[in-house]
Amino acid sequence: MLNQLKQQNPLIHCMTNMVVTTYTANGLLALGASPVMAYAKEEVGDMAQAAGALLLNIGTPSNELTDAMIIAGQSANQAGKPVILDPVGAGATPFRTEICQKILSEVDVTIVRGNAGELSALVGAQGVVKGVDGSSDGDKEAIAKQVATSFSCIAVLTGEVDVITDGSETYTVSNGHEWLTKVVGTGCLLGGVVAAFAATADKTDFVKACAQAVSYYGVAAENAYNVSQEQGYGTFGQAFIDHLGLLSEEEALRLQRIEMKK
Amino acid sequence: MLNQLKQQNPLIHCMTNMVVTTYTANGLLALGASPVMAYAKEEVGDMAQAAGALLLNIGTPSNELTDAMIIAGQSANQAGKPVILDPVGAGATPFRTEICQKILSEVDVTIVRGNAGELSALVGAQGVVKGVDGSSDGDKEAIAKQVATSFSCIAVLTGEVDVITDGSETYTVSNGHEWLTKVVGTGCLLGGVVAAFAATADKTDFVKACAQAVSYYGVAAENAYNVSQEQGYGTFGQAFIDHLGLLSEEEALRLQRIEMKK
Amino acid sequence: MLNQLKQQNPLIHCMTNMVVTTYTANGLLALGASPVMAYAKEEVGDMAQAAGALLLNIGTPSNELTDAMIIAGQSANQAGKPVILDPVGAGATPFRTEICQKILSEVDVTIVRGNAGELSALVGAQGVVKGVDGSSDGDKEAIAKQVATSFSCIAVLTGEVDVITDGSETYTVSNGHEWLTKVVGTGCLLGGVVAAFAATADKTDFVKACAQAVSYYGVAAENAYNVSQEQGYGTFGQAFIDHLGLLSEEEALRLQRIEMKK
Repeated sequence: MLNQLKQQNPLIHCMTNMVVTTYTANGLLALGASPVMAYAKEEVGDMAQAAGALLLNIGTPSNELTDAMIIAGQSANQAGKPVILDPVGAGATPFRTEICQKILSEVDVTIVRGNAGELSALVGAQGVVKGVDGSSDGDKEAIAKQVATSFSCIAVLTGEVDVITDGSETYTVSNGHEWLTKVVGTGCLLGGVVAAFAATADKTDFVKACAQAVSYYGVAAENAYNVSQEQGYGTFGQAFIDHLGLLSEEEALRLQRIEMKK
Repeated sequence: MLNQLKQQNPLIHCMTNMVVTTYTANGLLALGASPVMAYAKEEVGDMAQAAGALLLNIGTPSNELTDAMIIAGQSANQAGKPVILDPVGAGATPFRTEICQKILSEVDVTIVRGNAGELSALVGAQGVVKGVDGSSDGDKEAIAKQVATSFSCIAVLTGEVDVITDGSETYTVSNGHEWLTKVVGTGCLLGGVVAAFAATADKTDFVKACAQAVSYYGVAAENAYNVSQEQGYGTFGQAFIDHLGLLSEEEALRLQRIEMKK
Repeated sequence: MLNQLKQQNPLIHCMTNMVVTTYTANGLLALGASPVMAYAKEEVGDMAQAAGALLLNIGTPSNELTDAMIIAGQSANQAGKPVILDPVGAGATPFRTEICQKILSEVDVTIVRGNAGELSALVGAQGVVKGVDGSSDGDKEAIAKQVATSFSCIAVLTGEVDVITDGSETYTVSNGHEWLTKVVGTGCLLGGVVAAFAATADKTDFVKACAQAVSYYGVAAENAYNVSQEQGYGTFGQAFIDHLGLLSEEEALRLQRIEMKK
């Protein structure tokens, strides 16, 4: 699927938070996609329609931006383009939780990507969420399935082991590296990578495409760590962009650790 | 001119898009200029007047920001400071095209910097614009000249070969490296570099100053690639900042590939 | 104190300018703190209360953002959390000076971090401020003390030699490297580092904690330069993030150059 993605060079409309715009764009460029950022309500409908997928990331939320996200999301829905929601910090403040609920009620979200704490907050589960780096002791597979069935979407729950499910078809992925948590925007960029894979895949293959996106991303992180070792988090963060671009489909498939759950 | 720039350390008022602010600022600092970002209508007039040049980049546009850009642009006009417009994504949505037209009608723009698709959109020429990385099959020299004469400005059309013209004096530049297209903000930073050269040059030398800015920038990219080779796009993007700072005027002149057209 | 900081992993609520968000977040992550950015008036009160410290940086100011900063600041005040103000570009435009005065009159600011020009502007002293990289010929210790006594806060005045004072207890720090001035956001990140140390320290130790934060930061810059040498400003800026993470408390104490003034 990676070769196909690089060939198609899909346009990904990113409405993401102001902390991670550059890193997201550079990661998508390295991957072989074509990122575009657009936020104004006057143009997001046009841009979402022209794009292959739409990423909604609420990391630095506002009411105005939420309204624009809903316009973009509905436009993507009409055009049959996948919509990826990254509920950054859901549960950390009531404002963020409410924004997610509003988007989920007004837009047909295709994929939700978040950590256990954020996904718990979406379905009202209890979890301790600290800032945007939440954690939860609940059963991650159960949370992911609850999100998937509650919102008729694919849930991509990321953590040490990642869970990808649409409620019936479920995969776990155990690629990745813990240093990803020390570079800002790596989780947000994963939302973009998932969007790029979704823009490339057939709808019937979306769950598997998400699992492959997550695995691909994790292998790139492993390679980045292997090359940069303990030089530091700055060097690792840059090597990760390098390896998002350098990784071949063949190597990604060879190193992937995807398990299908029954 | 580079030595003069480093000596003068001109203040460049950047009203640029939220994806590229950091990269633009770091590139200008490396070059020897002094970047300042200011967006609020309450202060942009003061800042534009204090600066040596003003950069207007519409990459993440809004109506509010457009109003502030016009205030800043008119203030720069009154103070006799050059105004550089980067019409990012013009043609990709009607909103962006209209914003450019509004700025061009209310501000005396000194230099327009964009790719062939964006410049085509400004003059109503037909071109296929995909997101912000547009392309056009039209004759690039003709498009650049049409922009220059339509808006009484200098057009800097960048691509594999860059065209710089005020409608009569025309240069082409063939420095640069294709990896620049894989790092977000390199085109936007070029707008800033052009602004810094314009802040340093005499008005009578602006066309030549633009050609030198574009060439200087391309040589820095070549040097960055020569040093970082195929390590990856992240490493290249950082090496480019390094080499914007390391490149001497002597080496820039030695490696420049500028051709004067009749 | 560094070991304690890494152990506590304090949440730092950053309301900072749009040029430096990524760099600030990565620096804080490397240091061992947990950054969160939140700007909307609907949530900043909640976030500031949950955080260990609040950073207010006016580098890209607006009236709307100022209102949100005051809400956040007052919430932090009520919760007894330290508030750090970084008056970026105070004196460069009247708008920035007025915003600082408004924040200082409505919020109980714990620490003010700026250069000599910015701090002079806060107390009406005369200085030549050029953009956001101000300078002043006044006596830096006198300026810092005037800020500290005028606003009942700790002043952290940074420059070649840094001055930290609450008006009676005064330290100077002579760590650091001049290349810090060639990487955007290093000063702004220092505001974040000071916030993280303040979130960790006892209130009675805040002056000393600020001096240690400034010294720690300077040692990391020295180490970054020693490793990256003259490779360029891009490489240095990344190595600085590396060394913010690599520096141990032991080495920081060994290399610190803090002088207590009477």
